[in-house]
Amino acid sequence: MSTSNRTNVAIIGMGTVGAGVARLLIDHGDRTARHAGKTIWLSKAVVRDLNKPRGIDLPAGVLTDSIDEVLDDPSIDVVIQLMGGLSPAREVMLRAMEAGKDIVTANKALLAEHGGELFTRARQLGRSIAFEAAVAGGIPIIANVSQCLSANQILSLEGILNGTSNFIVSQMDEKGVGYDETVKLAQQLGYAEADPAMDVDGTDAAQKLAILSHLAFGATVDWRDIPRSGIDGLDPADLGFAGRLGYRIKLLATARLEDGELELSVGPTLVRKGTPMAEVRDAYNAIRVVGDAVGPVFYHGLGAGQMPTASAVVADVIDMAVGRTPITFQTLEYFSEDRPARAVQRDVAKLRGRYYFRLRVANHPGTLAAITGVLAQHAISISSVIQHEDVACENQNDGGIPTVPLVIMTHEASEGAARLAVEAIEGLDVVDGDVVRMPVRG
Amino acid sequence: MSTSNRTNVAIIGMGTVGAGVARLLIDHGDRTARHAGKTIWLSKAVVRDLNKPRGIDLPAGVLTDSIDEVLDDPSIDVVIQLMGGLSPAREVMLRAMEAGKDIVTANKALLAEHGGELFTRARQLGRSIAFEAAVAGGIPIIANVSQCLSANQILSLEGILNGTSNFIVSQMDEKGVGYDETVKLAQQLGYAEADPAMDVDGTDAAQKLAILSHLAFGATVDWRDIPRSGIDGLDPADLGFAGRLGYRIKLLATARLEDGELELSVGPTLVRKGTPMAEVRDAYNAIRVVGDAVGPVFYHGLGAGQMPTASAVVADVIDMAVGRTPITFQTLEYFSEDRPARAVQRDVAKLRGRYYFRLRVANHPGTLAAITGVLAQHAISISSVIQHEDVACENQNDGGIPTVPLVIMTHEASEGAARLAVEAIEGLDVVDGDVVRMPVRG
Ligand SMILES: NC(=O)c1ccc[n+]([C@@H]2O[C@H](COP(=O)([O-])OP(=O)(O)OC[C@H]3O[C@@H](n4cnc5c(N)ncnc54)[C@H](OP(=O)(O)O)[C@@H]3O)[C@@H](O)[C@H]2O)c1
Ligand SMILES: NC(=O)c1ccc[n+]([C@@H]2O[C@H](COP(=O)([O-])OP(=O)(O)OC[C@H]3O[C@@H](n4cnc5c(N)ncnc54)[C@H](OP(=O)(O)O)[C@@H]3O)[C@@H](O)[C@H]2O)c1
Repeated sequence: MSTSNRTNVAIIGMGTVGAGVARLLIDHGDRTARHAGKTIWLSKAVVRDLNKPRGIDLPAGVLTDSIDEVLDDPSIDVVIQLMGGLSPAREVMLRAMEAGKDIVTANKALLAEHGGELFTRARQLGRSIAFEAAVAGGIPIIANVSQCLSANQILSLEGILNGTSNFIVSQMDEKGVGYDETVKLAQQLGYAEADPAMDVDGTDAAQKLAILSHLAFGATVDWRDIPRSGIDGLDPADLGFAGRLGYRIKLLATARLEDGELELSVGPTLVRKGTPMAEVRDAYNAIRVVGDAVGPVFYHGLGAGQMPTASAVVADVIDMAVGRTPITFQTLEYFSEDRPARAVQRDVAKLRGRYYFRLRVANHPGTLAAITGVLAQHAISISSVIQHEDVACENQNDGGIPTVPLVIMTHEASEGAARLAVEAIEGLDVVDGDVVRMPVRG
Repeated sequence: MSTSNRTNVAIIGMGTVGAGVARLLIDHGDRTARHAGKTIWLSKAVVRDLNKPRGIDLPAGVLTDSIDEVLDDPSIDVVIQLMGGLSPAREVMLRAMEAGKDIVTANKALLAEHGGELFTRARQLGRSIAFEAAVAGGIPIIANVSQCLSANQILSLEGILNGTSNFIVSQMDEKGVGYDETVKLAQQLGYAEADPAMDVDGTDAAQKLAILSHLAFGATVDWRDIPRSGIDGLDPADLGFAGRLGYRIKLLATARLEDGELELSVGPTLVRKGTPMAEVRDAYNAIRVVGDAVGPVFYHGLGAGQMPTASAVVADVIDMAVGRTPITFQTLEYFSEDRPARAVQRDVAKLRGRYYFRLRVANHPGTLAAITGVLAQHAISISSVIQHEDVACENQNDGGIPTVPLVIMTHEASEGAARLAVEAIEGLDVVDGDVVRMPVRG
């Protein structure tokens, strides 16, 4: 870190986020200087295609298509790595640190995949990595979990960490339109990528949850080990039934300490209406952290988008320039593989919670008795039931037998029992097709 | 700041908050050491009365009734000042800094009153003051405004900053009971002091808003200059009418940049139901910050109470021990009187907003025309009216004429116009008593 009254930075990747960061650094140099106590100077901005319009006037000599121009320039103190993807992002980060530069990045996929390696290497080299923008965009959850709430043992952390999914689910819920149509709208509005797979299948939320679990619980979590499901293929019928039961469906990422073990999951979840989490709309993100001293703290803001994400990146650049990040980074040993893990992941079958089941059943007497019988065998008790016996809801199953939807909400049960019960129920003659199953909160 | 692997601290004032801080430091030394990279050692705890039970086992020799024992001990690095009040708190803080100690405090009254002097003296002496717990208790709003959102020009900041008031208003709203009865309940539950005047009359919220305005807008604000009213004497009738119009009443503190000037106010405000701010219940606090890059960020948590407040104090102690606070404190020049103010307070008459009026009027034709006529003269247009003509609502005024309540919600108008209109309306023959007036948000 340069101790002069100027910190020179370079941006690698001038896409959505990079252009926003450049705008803040160039248009608001007075502001960043006031908060950093020194000038933050944008020396270079690296792109692949020099001819693409960037929507911002860069001073002559700043734009380049050569990463080496940055890595070989000893006057550059901080590399703001915003190129996305795993490779060459990983190699560029390693080379930059070897060249003596600190890193600010928004690349959650890279951290979720190679965090251990990158953070260990940074420590060996005496460098720091800041990554506020990697989780929940504009909500400063990294700083809040690792610094502001540092007096607490965090007991649980749950959040809506993917804005694209939340936009889709909220739209479906409010407008009553189907999944495919809503995805198209999200793409038109720029909320969803051309290929939104990682957003809607829970991958992105799981990667962010893995990062937060490192910070909040000192747990080393591979995001692939987090049981996850997405909102892809969510049936509007479930939004309707959930609504009648007093809930909304949200793609919720959850981490919870239970007897010293860490329960992790990502999936569509019924969240009780009127709670702050249920009322998170559009592309907003939200996180509820419970600490043993502070109790619950709830954060709500824009989890993505050019300027909210740039806000987080530039806060990191300021913290780096002013010298706070190196202290935090050295003290907390983020993602350290040398430290004993403070919590291990709990066996999925042991997770406990309430469940929502929806299934199609033969519309004749004895059906409900058969199903509740299976639940009883697995020691699962029922809190509410919605059964449609009106003909308007009748379908014919393959065998020509009329079927109707049946919705069951349970009291607390283990994930293991719920799974076995679902298997058994799906095997019953009176049940048509698969059982839709979601956890319930609040 | 000691650079050894141990930071010695002393608590002055072992009341509600002090005892909570001692508990975190003593029972969770491993946790604070992990986050600070060194041991945080409670050397002394000062009280007036050595015989009062403190609900915590302190090691022998820690409890003392001598402040000098702390001030004269060169091994103590940080003084945690939790004794409340202005004097001798101010003198103790000054002496502690002169003795080379950094300060952590939760005393908002002291900072609102003497912040300029104390912060200037700290800078002269090369010392730091941390004060996360002074505003919004467990919600880390000080760190969020001054560090996490540092890439932004903050455009507005509004919040429920007094938990006692919020508890009282929420209870009155939900249970339909009167003000005096609710205050008694709040006292029984420990949410309100024996003398809750500063909480319910808006003083406490105004002091916190003044502190936040320094940080967010670089404005030097005397809390006495903030136009303020409290919830003392709030009439349940207004909660009822607000509810029918789709609003709740909250004691809202607001700071908003408008044409480079700062609009400040504290008072009961109609907040639209369904917005996160309207749904803040019980003794919770909440703050909504809008930044020009990040957009709106909303924070919700416990604004007071032993452990939430201790959470904020101990986070400050950790930041101090690890070395982040001195950097922040030196860079940001909090409350500096040398720096040009970045925003001046706007003339109250220029504030603009929508208003709620409630009055009692003679129940006869022409009344509404007279009142709307006055509003029109002041260029105030009406968005909704509730008028009760049923006899059940009739009262007799002093002259024996039957009166009924009239509620008017306006479109946007200036505070100056609203004041003049109210004066004129109160002078009308058809109007009985004073007009209740509150601003409307959302
Ligand atoms: N967008 C958001 O709201 C958001 C929110 C949070 C986090 N993030 C993360 O932030 C990162 C950047 O996202 P983004 O949306 O800004 O991505 P983007 O719009 O796709 O921009 C990527 C940029 O990287 C440049 N680039 C890619 N490969 C390069 C290479 N080999 N050499 C030089 N430049 C290269 C591209 O150059 P060309 O323009 O010349 O092709 C482009 O400017 C990602 O890790 C993303 O996950 C994004
Ligand atoms: N309570 C909250 O939830 C909360 C939240 C945010 C901020 N705060 C702020 O935190 C500060 C402390 O609040 P609190 O509720 O903990 O107050 P408290 O319960 O009244 O405790 C005050 C303590 O200070 C001691 N003390 C007072 N004068 C003293 C003197 N001259 N010498 C030595 N000790 C002295 C008292 O000693 P004895 O016990 O021997 O009388 C007592 O232990 C206040 O500034 C308050 O505004 C409180």
